Amino acid sequence: MERLEERLMRPLNIALVGLGVIGGSFAKGLRAQNVIHVNLLGIDTNAATIQRALDERIITQGETSNESILQQADVVIISLYPDDLVDFIQTHQDAFKKGAIITDTVGVKGSLIQQVEAILRPDVDYIFGHPMAGRENQGYEYAEAGVFHGANYLLMPRPRNQQANIDKLELILDAIGFRRITHVTPEFHDEMIAYTSQLCHVLAVALMNSDRHDRDTASFVGDSFRELTRIAKINDELWAQLFLYNKESLLESMAAFETEWQAMKQAIQTSNSQDLKEMFRESTKRRSSLEQTDLKLNIARNVAP
Amino acid sequence: MERLEERLMRPLNIALVGLGVIGGSFAKGLRAQNVIHVNLLGIDTNAATIQRALDERIITQGETSNESILQQADVVIISLYPDDLVDFIQTHQDAFKKGAIITDTVGVKGSLIQQVEAILRPDVDYIFGHPMAGRENQGYEYAEAGVFHGANYLLMPRPRNQQANIDKLELILDAIGFRRITHVTPEFHDEMIAYTSQLCHVLAVALMNSDRHDRDTASFVGDSFRELTRIAKINDELWAQLFLYNKESLLESMAAFETEWQAMKQAIQTSNSQDLKEMFRESTKRRSSLEQTDLKLNIARNVAP
Repeated sequence: MERLEERLMRPLNIALVGLGVIGGSFAKGLRAQNVIHVNLLGIDTNAATIQRALDERIITQGETSNESILQQADVVIISLYPDDLVDFIQTHQDAFKKGAIITDTVGVKGSLIQQVEAILRPDVDYIFGHPMAGRENQGYEYAEAGVFHGANYLLMPRPRNQQANIDKLELILDAIGFRRITHVTPEFHDEMIAYTSQLCHVLAVALMNSDRHDRDTASFVGDSFRELTRIAKINDELWAQLFLYNKESLLESMAAFETEWQAMKQAIQTSNSQDLKEMFRESTKRRSSLEQTDLKLNIARNVAP
Repeated sequence: MERLEERLMRPLNIALVGLGVIGGSFAKGLRAQNVIHVNLLGIDTNAATIQRALDERIITQGETSNESILQQADVVIISLYPDDLVDFIQTHQDAFKKGAIITDTVGVKGSLIQQVEAILRPDVDYIFGHPMAGRENQGYEYAEAGVFHGANYLLMPRPRNQQANIDKLELILDAIGFRRITHVTPEFHDEMIAYTSQLCHVLAVALMNSDRHDRDTASFVGDSFRELTRIAKINDELWAQLFLYNKESLLESMAAFETEWQAMKQAIQTSNSQDLKEMFRESTKRRSSLEQTDLKLNIARNVAP
């Protein structure tokens, strides 16, 4: 992160609001860069989490509700549940330092952005974002510096965002290890996330719950089942909010899935081997293309670190 | 594998019929044990595969169709597609050594077992099996000694199988690294496999294919999507056969999935946060229980290696 430090030119106070598995991973990822001029400050309602982050020297200052941290922060990274995010802005925005860069990591954007922008002070620069990585376990103890390494990041710049601030935020994200940062509209973000993330969680939960209770399923599982159900271990409060904030897009994604599902079901019912094979070849082509894209980016990153 | 060698007491010729990703992984897993008294012999229609396995000293003798291998083999492990398995038995069973243990790795059993037993010589001991691990890529070049390490194995003993032969086969499977060997009826095998394996493949393929073509999806994916679609890269010929051999059980599994899917969809449509959270807690409980079972077995294995 020397490059980051050089380009930032002066000490930087970064406040992390919410030190759960996501906020904690941001903190650890930043601390792992070992830049003395970046100070990490943490706010979390859980006093034990604050103490642990202080003990581990991940943060240099911590508070269970804001007293003096937001006032010093040049950058504020908020990792709260959707419902809590709006509350937090409403309650604490007077404490933000003038000109501060605010960002959040919440997985839905459309209506949330409208709510935030309707109440936001005009002299701070709020840049909406979303890291495309996480862990199925919740809490600071599952946070790791490496969670975001090589992951996608989505930014939803708004007309009033300053380019210099977007650049600064991207430097920070790059330093943590995000590999590919994409700018999108909030609407497109929500549409894509409904497919790449939320639909996956619906599938995993329904798959896990469709088992019968009287079977010793553990003796029959292989890697596929383990992989498809990892995210069936799910933070119920968080994901109920995420699904319902993005209900319309999620239902559209589910409808698109149902079309493919029905086509497969019909091919199986009618023993139509040719149709099945065609679907398999199509999914193989698509998955291979995804792997190629991932591979190219890894190579690019290795060539020019 | 010293224990295996000791307990087998005398040299053993193991023939591998089909050296694709599964048969090749058996061969490499056995060779990795480095037991001089176990000879591995390979039969594969692909001459280049045979040459490579010989060059790599994985097998000591290879043939593109049986000439003298089956005649010497004490154990025959057949890793062919379902349709080819029955053909192979029909064509080659006169070559089997009297008293040989025959097994296969085919992922469906019910009707296949009936077909094999209807034609099988009475003086060989065919023990039906199924390794619960594999790779999404096909061919010998993707075979690895470690594929089966820690995996489940299913055996479907038949009344005529000899206990001593079942024991010997289990010793071999244990040496390769399988962690948990379960005996089941062919019917229950097919029912469970429809859920733990085939349904997962239907979900992965339908998920991958339900994307729209005009989106840069690669920039939006996270670990969940990557995990849920790994097996969307699928051997079309093999899996079309597996699905259709097990059509009835697969459709039942799909119906059970649909019930859960509909319940989730309804909860989303009606913004029923309480129902959603209850489903999430249930899937979390089930997935955690699966992880605990896996964990216990790993620990047991580490304690008494």
